[in-house]
Amino acid sequence: MRFDVLTLFPEMVENYCNFSILKRAVDAGVVELNTVNPRDFTLDKHKKVDDTPYGGGAGMVLMPQPYVDAYESVQQLENSVTIMLSPQGEPLKENLVNDLAQYDQIIMLCGHYEGFDERIRDIINPREISLGDFVLTGGELPALCVIDAVSRKLEGTLGKIESAQDDSFADGLLEYPQYTKPREYRGLKVPEVLLNGNHKEINEYRYSERLKRTRERRPDLLH
Amino acid sequence: MRFDVLTLFPEMVENYCNFSILKRAVDAGVVELNTVNPRDFTLDKHKKVDDTPYGGGAGMVLMPQPYVDAYESVQQLENSVTIMLSPQGEPLKENLVNDLAQYDQIIMLCGHYEGFDERIRDIINPREISLGDFVLTGGELPALCVIDAVSRKLEGTLGKIESAQDDSFADGLLEYPQYTKPREYRGLKVPEVLLNGNHKEINEYRYSERLKRTRERRPDLLH
Repeated sequence: MRFDVLTLFPEMVENYCNFSILKRAVDAGVVELNTVNPRDFTLDKHKKVDDTPYGGGAGMVLMPQPYVDAYESVQQLENSVTIMLSPQGEPLKENLVNDLAQYDQIIMLCGHYEGFDERIRDIINPREISLGDFVLTGGELPALCVIDAVSRKLEGTLGKIESAQDDSFADGLLEYPQYTKPREYRGLKVPEVLLNGNHKEINEYRYSERLKRTRERRPDLLH
Repeated sequence: MRFDVLTLFPEMVENYCNFSILKRAVDAGVVELNTVNPRDFTLDKHKKVDDTPYGGGAGMVLMPQPYVDAYESVQQLENSVTIMLSPQGEPLKENLVNDLAQYDQIIMLCGHYEGFDERIRDIINPREISLGDFVLTGGELPALCVIDAVSRKLEGTLGKIESAQDDSFADGLLEYPQYTKPREYRGLKVPEVLLNGNHKEINEYRYSERLKRTRERRPDLLH
């Protein structure tokens, strides 16, 4: 999978990918990450990428030319999708992550400040994706979430492919409670059923815990 | 606002806060960031923080002792909230961000791999927050989203306080389209209404665009 990220803060994106599982995916050649800075595509000597909004209002708006030229500089593979990260997009969900993992290339446009000049949308026609109903200072964190969530679906990123299949949402329910050593910690014991080696009972216990937890915390997922 | 982040990857969190608006908030003293690594609280010589799950299953589970001891090492202010980032928590929304911005300290527990031993929840009793219905390799990106979303609500982070009030979701609608220079780009013109200086007409245009966009993209927000 190749990720091309258009951002005014390439280091923000690159730094994050130097750690943990994402680093392993990059080192293993499962993931390739490129960043493109629209500021490098400005035509004026001040390298200006934003300006005040027409019609008034606070904040700045990203000008179309640097973003469109930066976008057109990216080599597009055949099986490619372009995403704009914006609070106005389709909320990211596990099934959307699965869709995205089918592509060979994901190009992402990260906004900053007050957002994109509308003509950037008109010309590039990206799929718009939102992390959720809250606002961030830029699209870099959402882009990193897409990179992280998609990468862990790719074979070779996680240690065992089962780790991803067991996740919350894989079948619409939250995860069961997990326990590891020690058997007793500050008076709290691991449930007996997990220690007896009876896999049928363990599976029943875990499934009923998943149902219970989902009903208590996220009844919306059961409908 | 003071953020204390418990993470096995402190640099991931610290690096991100060296950029852009978050850096400005830290430099201005609006935000203070501390990280605590549970690995520094392990009692065995291999600095082991995770182990296999009781009852079987793929992946690893975070052991209670290093996380609980790390948590108890954090100096708690009076007006403090503790958050666990997990796909099983309450989904982050703009009104939850506003709630969190009222505290003086937010302590965050970031998981990794297969999640937390349930007794960490039992002992610390954190508020659980989820970024959305998708799974990431760790809680660091969700923690950064909380830091970013909350920080921009604090006076002194954004250039003008109005920038945050104009956002998507501030009143339950998506944002209107934005335009900046030039007036025409690749044949696409800025809408005439934004150029005529009639603020009543501009407000009407923008409100109707917000309604239209919300109806088209997120009808669920209108109910």
